[in-house]
Amino acid sequence: MKVLLGSGGVATPERLDLFKSLVSDHFKKSKNVVYIPLASANHFAGIERIREIMGDQGWKFNLLNEGKERRQIEEADGIYIAGGNSFLLVKELHRIGIIQQIQDAVGAGVPYLGVSAGSNVACPTMMTTNDMPIVRPDSYDSLGIVPFQINPHYYPGKIFFKYQGKEHPHFGESRRQRILEYHRIHDTPVLGMWEGSYVRWDGVAGTLIGRAAGFYPDGQTLDFYDGVIFNGQLQILESAP
Amino acid sequence: MKVLLGSGGVATPERLDLFKSLVSDHFKKSKNVVYIPLASANHFAGIERIREIMGDQGWKFNLLNEGKERRQIEEADGIYIAGGNSFLLVKELHRIGIIQQIQDAVGAGVPYLGVSAGSNVACPTMMTTNDMPIVRPDSYDSLGIVPFQINPHYYPGKIFFKYQGKEHPHFGESRRQRILEYHRIHDTPVLGMWEGSYVRWDGVAGTLIGRAAGFYPDGQTLDFYDGVIFNGQLQILESAP
Repeated sequence: MKVLLGSGGVATPERLDLFKSLVSDHFKKSKNVVYIPLASANHFAGIERIREIMGDQGWKFNLLNEGKERRQIEEADGIYIAGGNSFLLVKELHRIGIIQQIQDAVGAGVPYLGVSAGSNVACPTMMTTNDMPIVRPDSYDSLGIVPFQINPHYYPGKIFFKYQGKEHPHFGESRRQRILEYHRIHDTPVLGMWEGSYVRWDGVAGTLIGRAAGFYPDGQTLDFYDGVIFNGQLQILESAP
Repeated sequence: MKVLLGSGGVATPERLDLFKSLVSDHFKKSKNVVYIPLASANHFAGIERIREIMGDQGWKFNLLNEGKERRQIEEADGIYIAGGNSFLLVKELHRIGIIQQIQDAVGAGVPYLGVSAGSNVACPTMMTTNDMPIVRPDSYDSLGIVPFQINPHYYPGKIFFKYQGKEHPHFGESRRQRILEYHRIHDTPVLGMWEGSYVRWDGVAGTLIGRAAGFYPDGQTLDFYDGVIFNGQLQILESAP
């Protein structure tokens, strides 16, 4: 299994360079990567951006077309599910009926790339998303490509915002508090991935690129550093070098 | 109709004083306010906090008891739905089957207080929540006590977090972006309520206490200042004094 999951927040030149380098390596043997933007309001548009970012490898990426989804995934030697709204994405994946097909392809070794919502749906469910429930999917079940949950765009602690030059603390629930709420009901460990970070997953073990926090159903938390190797229960197998 | 909706974030002494004063006035004629904590992990606990905050008026507040919900709401002359997770709350309201009963009571003049998730479910749907979908309600339909949507704990612009003394920008979607996503699909105007702010609603018009932003399906945005009076479509009827 060859899986690359990004947290999103690829918004600085350094992060964009890292993204390009990782994606280029991830799809180095691929010639036809199906680009799936179902998390966007316009479900079948937006190939230009990834082609531009990937430069002379942009040709590898082909946009999902309405009504041709199954054949395109069948013919693809790479799958990329892009970011946006996870509720939209999961609703569409169920509606079109391509969940099993994507699972089978990835299980058979087709490289999968997910970013933000595309990482969220690589998990057993979409329950650790940050998105707004603008639609109601028939099920929250997702691809289950990795056995743990991911909270993308994770940040530690509390946040603040700035208004008219002044700093204001925000008192809404932190990500940690939300994940604790999740663990009052569910037992799957959750990886809170800092923006700009990635997980490489081979079906048995994962490697972190960047920074993350592991959350466990017993309430424990663990810091994940660049290079850490871990298993499907988010147990650390090898510390960072 | 006598409705008071708070954004939440009542976390400073000044905000707590304002909360106490508004809630005291809101329930001044009430003797039996049913306190509904269904948004919490423990659906039938937590009366101590509100009793402590309300001091010598704490006796008015009575905890919802499992299995006695319908009779308690029938006998109450005040309803307070507290904050927590909107997905939990809406799932429980549907499961217990008390939505119509609360709507009827509030329609007949029983004062309603909602804070955070309790404000979110006062809207036609819970679709403008910030919470994590840790359970899947059978429907996103909510109380519809007010005809517009509320995004509680709203903040303008982007957010920051601090780590090891350094400030980090966060690149995830802003509230504005999330509400724009909502308006790509839905037509109900959305009031983004700053923390610590309130709406008083009489069934026809609302008064803002604090600060908010109105979002409209055509993409327009309007700043709402303290004292503004507005209608159910979030059209401003009278500017702040």
